[in-house]
Amino acid sequence: MEKAIGVFDSGLGGLTAVKELAALMPNENIIYLGDTARVPYGSRSPETLIRFAKEDLSFVLRQNVKAVLVACGTISSVALPILKKECPVFVEGVVGPAARSAAAKTKNGKVAVIATNATINSGAYRKELSSIDNNIEVFEKACPMFVPIVENGYFGRDNAAAKIIVSDYLSEVKRSGADTVILGCTHYPILRPLIADFLGPDVNLVDSGKEAAKVICEKIKADGLCSDSENLGGHTYYVTDEPSGFVNLAELFLDRKIGNEVKKAVLTEENI
Amino acid sequence: MEKAIGVFDSGLGGLTAVKELAALMPNENIIYLGDTARVPYGSRSPETLIRFAKEDLSFVLRQNVKAVLVACGTISSVALPILKKECPVFVEGVVGPAARSAAAKTKNGKVAVIATNATINSGAYRKELSSIDNNIEVFEKACPMFVPIVENGYFGRDNAAAKIIVSDYLSEVKRSGADTVILGCTHYPILRPLIADFLGPDVNLVDSGKEAAKVICEKIKADGLCSDSENLGGHTYYVTDEPSGFVNLAELFLDRKIGNEVKKAVLTEENI
Repeated sequence: MEKAIGVFDSGLGGLTAVKELAALMPNENIIYLGDTARVPYGSRSPETLIRFAKEDLSFVLRQNVKAVLVACGTISSVALPILKKECPVFVEGVVGPAARSAAAKTKNGKVAVIATNATINSGAYRKELSSIDNNIEVFEKACPMFVPIVENGYFGRDNAAAKIIVSDYLSEVKRSGADTVILGCTHYPILRPLIADFLGPDVNLVDSGKEAAKVICEKIKADGLCSDSENLGGHTYYVTDEPSGFVNLAELFLDRKIGNEVKKAVLTEENI
Repeated sequence: MEKAIGVFDSGLGGLTAVKELAALMPNENIIYLGDTARVPYGSRSPETLIRFAKEDLSFVLRQNVKAVLVACGTISSVALPILKKECPVFVEGVVGPAARSAAAKTKNGKVAVIATNATINSGAYRKELSSIDNNIEVFEKACPMFVPIVENGYFGRDNAAAKIIVSDYLSEVKRSGADTVILGCTHYPILRPLIADFLGPDVNLVDSGKEAAKVICEKIKADGLCSDSENLGGHTYYVTDEPSGFVNLAELFLDRKIGNEVKKAVLTEENI
């Protein structure tokens, strides 16, 4: 069987990256892992996140993959250098691709990053943006309620509670004058309409999962690893909690049916 | 050293029960475990919850305890019968004590239960209430956003987003006409002022952790296992993620300082 592209996340968020990857490379097999028994990751400590990340990557590598997309802003921020050192195939996270896209897009040199607590505490986006262009002013804001409101269906454009929470977190972002805002967590594209309504049409929103999908796609092409064009692009979704609870929201994130493609994954403490 | 009372929860919520236990039995040593690396539990499947519950109980039993309070509504609902079978000391959850208290308090025979998805799906409170009095009408409502809003500080009495979320979930509860509402998750007492404001002064609110603490206290007294009255009642808090992230909110839940009493716990898959 053709080798697949491996993608993993704490839960559902990474599916926004899978959607982009499937649009860019419809002939590729994709293996997805969502650690739904331990989601969310954004409030955990670096030590715990590194342990979870190694277990996740170890599982994905056992599925015959030719490249890995870490479709979780938190793991990308906290553990990517460690994973890169230990991973035998190309592995990319969302931070570098999103930072490069934002640096290219900003006109006033002010970029804001919104993400989980762990991502903001890591300073990963700030460091990446500064290494690209030291003159970029970076404004960071943790938005810890964004994942729970997405996971619990509070993301309708007219949802009154979601509008207040968006306003609570993003008022400072608006005041920062940033013309470009990185959605530094792969759950956040689901809130894009609400975020765009609040920040207005003149602010660029950078979808970190989408940018990472583009990088994976370019790398696979450059390395001559593309799948045969007659391949149908099979997807398999693994979750660490029961599959049944995953399917409905996952189909909403992916905008396609996946009922039969979801399996239970057992992670082990075995390191990569 | 005097044997302790063991208490465990997914995270912070169970501390509302510890507070009650310490007030009732100030001379008792208390060992608390919060599984902060895997919180929240309320959205997980029964299979995963049973695995987590066994690992939690196994850790608590290794700490020299004379009784165990399962201060988590979700584990109490889904796994208590299994834990009872395997536990060598007295173990009680929050469902039975809260249901008995609600059955005694209701005047119109209508009791509502608000709790996590997993608790409501288990039907545990409904079964318990029916076994006490088959004539009680039970109304159940899952409130999956209540744990995230508590964990992220959205619980002030005037918090606009929290007020909307409380109203979203509890409008049906209000319409049910229940005169008694069980707070079926140990996080919910933190939202008590908001819930009471919405439901009005004529509705009894039953704090499930408090009721369970009373039962543990009575049992220890009945069995002659009370600690020496000169014991100072030492508390030790274990968490599965880093202690530093736990302390601030924990002190708010407990209304006392605990900085030096928090340690890191490593859970194993070893069964009890």
